[in-house]
Amino acid sequence: MTLLELLDFASVFVFALTGALVASRAQLDIVGFAFVAALTATGGGTVRDVILDRNPVFWVAEPMFVAIAVLASVLVFFTAHMFESRLRVLTWLDALALAVAVPAGTGVAMTLGHSAAIVLLMGVATGCLGGLMRDVVCNEVPLVLKQGELYVTAALAGAAAALLTAQAAPQSVALVACAVVTFVLRAGSLLFGWRLPVYRSRPPRR
Amino acid sequence: MTLLELLDFASVFVFALTGALVASRAQLDIVGFAFVAALTATGGGTVRDVILDRNPVFWVAEPMFVAIAVLASVLVFFTAHMFESRLRVLTWLDALALAVAVPAGTGVAMTLGHSAAIVLLMGVATGCLGGLMRDVVCNEVPLVLKQGELYVTAALAGAAAALLTAQAAPQSVALVACAVVTFVLRAGSLLFGWRLPVYRSRPPRR
Amino acid sequence: MTLLELLDFASVFVFALTGALVASRAQLDIVGFAFVAALTATGGGTVRDVILDRNPVFWVAEPMFVAIAVLASVLVFFTAHMFESRLRVLTWLDALALAVAVPAGTGVAMTLGHSAAIVLLMGVATGCLGGLMRDVVCNEVPLVLKQGELYVTAALAGAAAALLTAQAAPQSVALVACAVVTFVLRAGSLLFGWRLPVYRSRPPRR
Repeated sequence: MTLLELLDFASVFVFALTGALVASRAQLDIVGFAFVAALTATGGGTVRDVILDRNPVFWVAEPMFVAIAVLASVLVFFTAHMFESRLRVLTWLDALALAVAVPAGTGVAMTLGHSAAIVLLMGVATGCLGGLMRDVVCNEVPLVLKQGELYVTAALAGAAAALLTAQAAPQSVALVACAVVTFVLRAGSLLFGWRLPVYRSRPPRR
Repeated sequence: MTLLELLDFASVFVFALTGALVASRAQLDIVGFAFVAALTATGGGTVRDVILDRNPVFWVAEPMFVAIAVLASVLVFFTAHMFESRLRVLTWLDALALAVAVPAGTGVAMTLGHSAAIVLLMGVATGCLGGLMRDVVCNEVPLVLKQGELYVTAALAGAAAALLTAQAAPQSVALVACAVVTFVLRAGSLLFGWRLPVYRSRPPRR
Repeated sequence: MTLLELLDFASVFVFALTGALVASRAQLDIVGFAFVAALTATGGGTVRDVILDRNPVFWVAEPMFVAIAVLASVLVFFTAHMFESRLRVLTWLDALALAVAVPAGTGVAMTLGHSAAIVLLMGVATGCLGGLMRDVVCNEVPLVLKQGELYVTAALAGAAAALLTAQAAPQSVALVACAVVTFVLRAGSLLFGWRLPVYRSRPPRR
């Protein structure tokens, strides 16, 4: 298995865990868990593959990806009650999923020979869109748009780190650098409140 | 007209009726009715065709599908006030639409020669995603994720019935079996409360 | 630069401004501004290109489109506080964006030689879907579905105007006619309350 395939598998598994956790907050049945898990796990990569006209889409080529998402949802269905704070577990699993999905998207775009701009955008899209679909469908406030936290920024910085590292090192090193930078920035934001200045309007007159 | 084309037409027409009913709850004008109806009616099949790289997308090949969705929205615009409970009509029409859309998706994937896993997934996706788009866009609680009702389960069981039946019978019989299983499970859930156990957390400490 | 390219650029820029304004209402940071702006600016055209199997997608072929969306978001980040009513500016910029996106979608479908029905649908989809994604993701009431305002109607009438004009005049004239009709109808609806009758149910018995 190549590093890229491993990243795709890991991204599907961990994003599926987050989807199942959101399903548990909505008190769905086990098929509902699997549905939300599969949507979350495959959403970002599907958009990436459709936009890059990569054919077939990764999980059509290898349905084992969906089986892994279903497995993750079964796991969560029977264990989620053990966690004291599901929201906390969800947030951290989502950070981990982001840190594997961004290099997965970045790596695919690099391998297809796309320009730096498209590599950056595919890293961000693959990392952010699955979780965004999960939150929109389940009517949660999207993690990706949560005020005062680094999320898209972490994805963007990770993809940029991959591009820079790839100038001087093999692609596998670049993808690891991408994962590390993404996770450190997201984790730092959650733990230490790292953030960019947010927009604040003057109090509008009306 | 083949059975598959008939299923696609029926699915578009009935899902369009549900879209128009949701538009009536949002008090849109007739063009708004047609917009929501067309989105609902073509959403699931469009995702199916894009993911399977089926080209052109079914309603680009045959714009009559969209004309049928528009017709359905006009019909609802002038008759919806006659129903005592639009939500009830909506729920049952949606069940009927699911029962034709799942075999439509299943049949296309079978005809293209896809594996059992992809046939199952395309049945579920074609059946569930149009209604999901309708509910997300119109800010309704998605029927597909309603707690304690069989929905994705009905779609999945229907697609599985098609796969099993196709081992021993022609595809047309398999698609009819798919429609019957999907509708019976969904209707049984609505009428008799059939359900799978839903996830219930122990009361979390925080 | 052809007129079609100019329309695509203008549509991306103005829709990006609206996305950034919505981001300002959600008090995101500058990367969040750019994310919502890029999603809004490229969403409609991406759906159009994927459905028409236009390859590569316009912003993959020319990443400058995304750079323009980022530029627009920076602009808004540093100037949005100057406006008395951001909602008012947003509504009018969105009307302008609609009036350039509809001819952009219409023109692409015409150039690819599609039938009148597909040209109409692509005009409406390109015009309406980017803003719809913006509003769904940011949990705003979708402008496209706002009760008692012409929106989809303006897009549809604009695309129809393009089709009629193209019978007797060059495509560039048809696209200008499309932009004018779309904007006049939308603006008239905002300024003078032009509208179609909306659906009103009789008071339901239950």
